[in-house]
Amino acid sequence: LENRQILLGSQTHAKSSLRRFIMIDERVDEIYGDSIRGYFRHHAVEYHILTLSTSEQKKNMDTVLQCTEELETFGISRRCEPIIAIGGGVLLDIAGLVSNLCHRGVPYIRIPTTLLSLVDASIGAKVGVNFSGHKNRLGTYYPPLATFLDKSFLRTLDSRQISNGLAEILKIAVAKDKKLFALLEENGSSLIQDKLQDMHVSPLIIQHAIQGMLDELAPNLWEHELERYVDFGHSFSPVIEMRALPELLHGEAVAIDLALSTVLAYQRTLISTSDLNRVLHLIKTLELPLIHSVCTPDLLHEALQDTILHRDGLQRLPLPTAIGSARFFNDVTVQEITIAIDALKRLI
Amino acid sequence: LENRQILLGSQTHAKSSLRRFIMIDERVDEIYGDSIRGYFRHHAVEYHILTLSTSEQKKNMDTVLQCTEELETFGISRRCEPIIAIGGGVLLDIAGLVSNLCHRGVPYIRIPTTLLSLVDASIGAKVGVNFSGHKNRLGTYYPPLATFLDKSFLRTLDSRQISNGLAEILKIAVAKDKKLFALLEENGSSLIQDKLQDMHVSPLIIQHAIQGMLDELAPNLWEHELERYVDFGHSFSPVIEMRALPELLHGEAVAIDLALSTVLAYQRTLISTSDLNRVLHLIKTLELPLIHSVCTPDLLHEALQDTILHRDGLQRLPLPTAIGSARFFNDVTVQEITIAIDALKRLI
Repeated sequence: LENRQILLGSQTHAKSSLRRFIMIDERVDEIYGDSIRGYFRHHAVEYHILTLSTSEQKKNMDTVLQCTEELETFGISRRCEPIIAIGGGVLLDIAGLVSNLCHRGVPYIRIPTTLLSLVDASIGAKVGVNFSGHKNRLGTYYPPLATFLDKSFLRTLDSRQISNGLAEILKIAVAKDKKLFALLEENGSSLIQDKLQDMHVSPLIIQHAIQGMLDELAPNLWEHELERYVDFGHSFSPVIEMRALPELLHGEAVAIDLALSTVLAYQRTLISTSDLNRVLHLIKTLELPLIHSVCTPDLLHEALQDTILHRDGLQRLPLPTAIGSARFFNDVTVQEITIAIDALKRLI
Repeated sequence: LENRQILLGSQTHAKSSLRRFIMIDERVDEIYGDSIRGYFRHHAVEYHILTLSTSEQKKNMDTVLQCTEELETFGISRRCEPIIAIGGGVLLDIAGLVSNLCHRGVPYIRIPTTLLSLVDASIGAKVGVNFSGHKNRLGTYYPPLATFLDKSFLRTLDSRQISNGLAEILKIAVAKDKKLFALLEENGSSLIQDKLQDMHVSPLIIQHAIQGMLDELAPNLWEHELERYVDFGHSFSPVIEMRALPELLHGEAVAIDLALSTVLAYQRTLISTSDLNRVLHLIKTLELPLIHSVCTPDLLHEALQDTILHRDGLQRLPLPTAIGSARFFNDVTVQEITIAIDALKRLI
């Protein structure tokens, strides 16, 4: 309660009392709303809480404009009153875009409350919303003033939400961190059961995952380089996720993409049978799917075409070359993808 | 026709033919559409032209989303196919925001066709749209890949559009360039009559105006410093313009703000009677208004409050201290504003 870090921001010139506009996920408000309100009252902050019911379907420009309208009514100074966003990835992505667009940019603070947002959405500068059936098609790069990470929020998640976040951790593990992969193999089930509340393994896993992301994003925050290891699991998944809505969570679509990419790598003899099996087995241990009925060759071809546009004319498809390493390929064919889909379907 | 500069952009990786998405003002399309299409055909470019009927009322997020939808249908690569925007300030501001939001940023090229956009909207990095009755309330900073200036476009403008642009030139002149002010005094009427097509004075005036803007904007492109000489004429005018829509053009609202600020400066004995008269006389010579019926003390108070939010808690109001110089003030009162409005009303 006495921690004033969340009130970070420079002093306004004209006003005597602190003012804050807070955006918060509906579910987070249900659980933590009273203590959050208590915090701002305790610090005599004039605040307005905007509670959002979030989902990938509602992650659109309409929601952004509703938020900016409410922000406009509250009135916000341009530099000194950071928007505070508390919630999962959808909320943080919306809040980031609202913050960027209003007055061409007001500062904002990210407080992730899900595992997925803790290790993924809060790292880096990307904000945005879905548009025209495309995942995150409208957005900007807009880094927050600060991000506060508190894994005690994970306590109240259901296990599917934990698995959802583990998919992004698995991505980092397969693409570039075999130590992290081993940690997931050894602790996968208990991570889900304990919701990462243990004091030994989970901090290590979260630290590896975030450090892995930071190492990739920090030197390439604006994506001048389009061959990105963090795109592993994100070549087919945007279209899979959007087409399967609301059935698949983001991390579940990523897991399917990881499985598919790993099988593609195996078919090209980039990885051994043993590595293939370890990856597929770990996906199952983490209670994530290997495939989904929307995954037809046509759909995945469409997904790849969209990815090529997004990666400026080349596939730049990261495929694992071992557990903990990957390379980029530009010549994956629809035939290979069709064979990979069939292989995955036989596994389930 | 042989000039390939407008096709600026790096080579795409996968495609053999150049592709370009072109956004163009309806009026520009009427006059220059055939030759523009001829140009792209001549260079064997696969192109799509989006013709927009623009106005301050249509400068909103709905229009941005219609454009992104059409862009999405055309399909655009992320780095190699700059959007080409040809038109006035409203079109360029919309095109800039569309370019920033799509794929979190595709390159774009600005080709201004009005005097206002030539000396103002195409300089700097600001893009945006009106929102919730507020001028340019939603937007970002997103510099173009290139801007091509061609004053022969001005030939087909009506004289009101020329005056509209001269207001922004006058702003630079009063705030920081007495040589430019003298050029406007000596040539005001003929500039409007010739639509800046002469080969001697107009290039000099345009060069002074743009250089004056660049000197201010280049070291402060992201507005970390909120005391900006280029905000002269832009403290009261955003609200005046939005409230008087569609009666006042942007430059006309700016001229009223210039007149008001100059009278405020005179009331504070910052400038002489002679300087006051020169400024007010030049505004009239340039066929711009000194005041408008929406300008009540209440409205201008509201405008100032909004400006204070936008300037982070302080008025930071630029007032002239002579012709060609200005200083910033934070203590202008409603009473002073009321007296200034009355003074201007007596002048017309």
